[in-house]
Amino acid sequence: MSVRVGINGYGTIGKRTAYAILKQDDMEIVGVTKRRPSYEARLAVKQGIPLYVPGEENIPAFEKEDIPVAGVLRDLLQKVDIIVDCTPGGVGETYKPLYEEAGVKAIFQGGEDHSVAGISFNSFANYHESWGAQFSRVVSCNTTGLIRTLYPLDRVFGVEKVFAALVRRGADPGDIKGAPLNAVEPSLKLPTHHGPDVQSIMPWLNIHTMAVKTPTTMMHVHCITADLRRKATDVDILSVWDNVPRIKFVSGRHGIKSSAQIMELARDLNRPRGDFMEIIVWEDGVKVEGGTLYYYQAVHQESDVVPEIIDCIRAMMKLERDPLKSIRKTDRSLGIGK
Amino acid sequence: MSVRVGINGYGTIGKRTAYAILKQDDMEIVGVTKRRPSYEARLAVKQGIPLYVPGEENIPAFEKEDIPVAGVLRDLLQKVDIIVDCTPGGVGETYKPLYEEAGVKAIFQGGEDHSVAGISFNSFANYHESWGAQFSRVVSCNTTGLIRTLYPLDRVFGVEKVFAALVRRGADPGDIKGAPLNAVEPSLKLPTHHGPDVQSIMPWLNIHTMAVKTPTTMMHVHCITADLRRKATDVDILSVWDNVPRIKFVSGRHGIKSSAQIMELARDLNRPRGDFMEIIVWEDGVKVEGGTLYYYQAVHQESDVVPEIIDCIRAMMKLERDPLKSIRKTDRSLGIGK
Amino acid sequence: MSVRVGINGYGTIGKRTAYAILKQDDMEIVGVTKRRPSYEARLAVKQGIPLYVPGEENIPAFEKEDIPVAGVLRDLLQKVDIIVDCTPGGVGETYKPLYEEAGVKAIFQGGEDHSVAGISFNSFANYHESWGAQFSRVVSCNTTGLIRTLYPLDRVFGVEKVFAALVRRGADPGDIKGAPLNAVEPSLKLPTHHGPDVQSIMPWLNIHTMAVKTPTTMMHVHCITADLRRKATDVDILSVWDNVPRIKFVSGRHGIKSSAQIMELARDLNRPRGDFMEIIVWEDGVKVEGGTLYYYQAVHQESDVVPEIIDCIRAMMKLERDPLKSIRKTDRSLGIGK
Amino acid sequence: MSVRVGINGYGTIGKRTAYAILKQDDMEIVGVTKRRPSYEARLAVKQGIPLYVPGEENIPAFEKEDIPVAGVLRDLLQKVDIIVDCTPGGVGETYKPLYEEAGVKAIFQGGEDHSVAGISFNSFANYHESWGAQFSRVVSCNTTGLIRTLYPLDRVFGVEKVFAALVRRGADPGDIKGAPLNAVEPSLKLPTHHGPDVQSIMPWLNIHTMAVKTPTTMMHVHCITADLRRKATDVDILSVWDNVPRIKFVSGRHGIKSSAQIMELARDLNRPRGDFMEIIVWEDGVKVEGGTLYYYQAVHQESDVVPEIIDCIRAMMKLERDPLKSIRKTDRSLGIGK
Repeated sequence: MSVRVGINGYGTIGKRTAYAILKQDDMEIVGVTKRRPSYEARLAVKQGIPLYVPGEENIPAFEKEDIPVAGVLRDLLQKVDIIVDCTPGGVGETYKPLYEEAGVKAIFQGGEDHSVAGISFNSFANYHESWGAQFSRVVSCNTTGLIRTLYPLDRVFGVEKVFAALVRRGADPGDIKGAPLNAVEPSLKLPTHHGPDVQSIMPWLNIHTMAVKTPTTMMHVHCITADLRRKATDVDILSVWDNVPRIKFVSGRHGIKSSAQIMELARDLNRPRGDFMEIIVWEDGVKVEGGTLYYYQAVHQESDVVPEIIDCIRAMMKLERDPLKSIRKTDRSLGIGK
Repeated sequence: MSVRVGINGYGTIGKRTAYAILKQDDMEIVGVTKRRPSYEARLAVKQGIPLYVPGEENIPAFEKEDIPVAGVLRDLLQKVDIIVDCTPGGVGETYKPLYEEAGVKAIFQGGEDHSVAGISFNSFANYHESWGAQFSRVVSCNTTGLIRTLYPLDRVFGVEKVFAALVRRGADPGDIKGAPLNAVEPSLKLPTHHGPDVQSIMPWLNIHTMAVKTPTTMMHVHCITADLRRKATDVDILSVWDNVPRIKFVSGRHGIKSSAQIMELARDLNRPRGDFMEIIVWEDGVKVEGGTLYYYQAVHQESDVVPEIIDCIRAMMKLERDPLKSIRKTDRSLGIGK
Repeated sequence: MSVRVGINGYGTIGKRTAYAILKQDDMEIVGVTKRRPSYEARLAVKQGIPLYVPGEENIPAFEKEDIPVAGVLRDLLQKVDIIVDCTPGGVGETYKPLYEEAGVKAIFQGGEDHSVAGISFNSFANYHESWGAQFSRVVSCNTTGLIRTLYPLDRVFGVEKVFAALVRRGADPGDIKGAPLNAVEPSLKLPTHHGPDVQSIMPWLNIHTMAVKTPTTMMHVHCITADLRRKATDVDILSVWDNVPRIKFVSGRHGIKSSAQIMELARDLNRPRGDFMEIIVWEDGVKVEGGTLYYYQAVHQESDVVPEIIDCIRAMMKLERDPLKSIRKTDRSLGIGK
Repeated sequence: MSVRVGINGYGTIGKRTAYAILKQDDMEIVGVTKRRPSYEARLAVKQGIPLYVPGEENIPAFEKEDIPVAGVLRDLLQKVDIIVDCTPGGVGETYKPLYEEAGVKAIFQGGEDHSVAGISFNSFANYHESWGAQFSRVVSCNTTGLIRTLYPLDRVFGVEKVFAALVRRGADPGDIKGAPLNAVEPSLKLPTHHGPDVQSIMPWLNIHTMAVKTPTTMMHVHCITADLRRKATDVDILSVWDNVPRIKFVSGRHGIKSSAQIMELARDLNRPRGDFMEIIVWEDGVKVEGGTLYYYQAVHQESDVVPEIIDCIRAMMKLERDPLKSIRKTDRSLGIGK
């Protein structure tokens, strides 16, 4: 019998999670919630996904636009085994009591604090920690990106100390609120939250981060330096990453010089929505010098956490014991691959 | 027997044309040419499309990168019934003698002058003019956009005079050459070439155009005013467009307020590459006042000419007499629809 | 005796107005108001401009930052002959009762409706309408730009009908709220307010406008077509504009191809703040064809209304009867010139 | 008697250097060269600066535009004591033989290799190395920025190791060639040249750098981490920087949150051209943790090297023995100050 999943919030992450669940054979989507009768709400209905609203007060706006509403969030919670909370950062926390009351499991996003779920999740690094858990948190896009490349490095070579400067996109492509048009904006509160966030999964890692916001919609780009405990060459590093899932190489030598061209590649590969769920590493931007590794990676902020959410459902619902099997199943279903 | 098509130039338009031909049952792709061993060349090979190069001098670079080359352009021309020239603007013209010599039909892009082919093409407006032709030119993305909405208006209401201000995207999303980052750049040579270009298909139309380039990669947006000969209401206008192919409505009221959200919709609809081959009209941005119609439309510069190219092949190769049947066949194969 | 001026609101327009008044010999700045203890508030104090706050409730925040406050708006109103309202659009209206109560004259900005003041102002077109007035409104940057070039054209050649497509900047350079990063956003409500706004000063003019917002901070660029009643050549048009104030020519032929290079020229001319208070016309982007004039102009949204405000003070305070004398005095003091 | 200076190349740096020299009492500008009759050439003439061209072949274009030419570069070299080479990166080197032949001293820019001059220059760090030198090189904007803050830190606390991620602007504001519009582009060749460039002045410093290009025109922003040898608090760090020239603090708390607002501040301070020749440090973005210092700084790429060039002239021409006296003289003349 397949696991019944609900999604609270049908925005950037919510709509991708819904799509991903439709592609799985061991889970089904019972419904999604949307606050306003936007075109996304219409599309959900068109795709045959039952549409719920947060509360009774949201119904009239949908009725006015002739968009059928299946009920309110409380109704949805009665019908699901697990809810994926895809509400905006800080909002998920406020729903936790409702999820507890309904007795459903819940996955939170990286916009919430670790303490909201008590467990943070990455498919490759700590799948088992969420085994059968009531609550878990899939860490943010940036944190997922850092863990994807750092965890295997640490396992193989030992990582003494990491510094990462995160060059963040200013807003998502369809984001109407926007961002400063012609400016770079540093995250002045230091260290930024990304380091501690990585430590929610790799508590032993000595990592520090800084971050700036730039006027692009494409991807986050990370400049990373890692002091390694054991000797390694550029080739050693690439070979480790080549053997772990959800890391993809691109090469400036082949004409992929910027985040824009990475996203163009995703379109050319006919990836759904033009998304790249892997972390992208420039293979000619990897350099070991004097025991320190330098590398650049690009993170597709809209989608890299989506396969992690699917795996997290499997762990929490005890659908699959072997993380690698879950990862492979998810990746095959979503067209992720080297 | 299916028509054998070659594509000279495998960039923005070339790769989309190749994809579109793969989706047809009455034509097949024999090969494409690429000048440099970029990642796009690799992808063509991966998809099983035979890869040619312009001349012998281009082969060593491909050999160095281990990308198999099927031959040079001359070889490709021996094997095709028709070649779609997708080389950069102004370059297509220089290949015409080669096409003539090989005795193959050829389609040029809007970057070439009308005189290169002697016939210009739009599926809905003048399909028959290219019937059996040796050469034809599919007009540019902007011109295609103008004709898609103006031709039906003219047929039904009569259009006395048109003025259009074209707010152009600065560069395509994956374009590395780039454009001025924080500037608006007018096309000072007036009138711009777009008006005469429309007249290559609608020679009777009194149309004037101005254009500016803006720092966005998304879409061209047109501000259009048309003096109508017969009375019409906003609803009349929308109803005409609703009944012709390759025009799609969006609405600011449903949250689609900008070109960015139109492209987001294309992704959400899972259109290949996130393209929108229709011309997009804001239904709440249409207004008739005192005999003059005002409307905004958005043109996806990377893809709107692609279905026209497919139809143009059918007309030139005499595959289908009825333009609407060709249009419908093309649209169904490419997922274009209201 | 010099006129005592207060400024309510010390943002983009307010700080420039303060600077401009400091340069005049027939008026003086008594104080400005600022809501929050930002760096701009500090700079006002540093320059010796008395700083007021809207109300008592704003004082503690300033005290906390050790920025001396001279009083509240009511106090300032006691000390001035005229207040220049530079609060955000729609806010000015709410202050009108306070200005009336204090018995001071007031100038509103183009963000307010014409009805708030009952009179709208342009130095060249209708200086005398504000002669001795209690309230007047200096029209917005875009409207000022349209009137600067259209009014003299209409006087000399007669203008039958105007259509203008306004390509607006997305946000001001220092604006932290930002705007959509990679999108063009049309003003769907048609006709846009700019036409009626021009008519608040030229009520006889048949003008229609459309507008889009683009991701640049630099300037608004207008694409304008005007049907002329009397015959005119390109040279005739340029010669008229050459003889009226606050219009400046640039030329693509000299390398000024975009709004960015216009602003670069302002910096090279060492204009205060790098502002261009003139309307900029590309002299090689002016074209008359069949009785219709086509031209591009660029509007520096941050500053073009500032000299108008100074002239408006003179008209309302009956300081100078001859508009051209006021214009010349203002322009000389601010470094405006051909 | 004042030193006679020529400037070869009148672009971004050249025009600012000319302006700066005009403000000095111990040097005078004899002429500048310009290759094309652009508006900048016109402005030079308007300001009374004699205009030269690289060679005879450039004269006709200037004659056609009625711009008076004083001679060719060789003529200019006969009249000067020192030439400031402001030609594009890599071009300066090709002029060296000409300078040698003419027997004039020459200053190169950071776009040239250290080896071209054999000496690299920073006013505060190594003024005396260029004392009386025939050739010297003022390091690039980014390198100047790094040295301005790192050199005093190293002097006071000892710097064990530095890592800097440089978030570069994509193009200068008036740059028409442009840059990728919506992309982040890493410098894949690692380590980037900035580290070795710093070492051309501080050869003992262990520094590594990475860099990305972003679609902004405003400033470079650096994310820097420095391991310190001696204990220091945030306040200690700020206090050191407060006592050295050409470092300016801003604060996010006062509303200066991004590079855009820094440039807005320069305009508000009425700095010439809206330039900021100081290196800007966010005082609330400085953090010492566990012996490592983290800080953000912003570099105005168009202007920060200009005062260094003035000081370098003084050193090479033996005008002033005390670097601090030269720095103070330069800074006072250019309005640089805390």
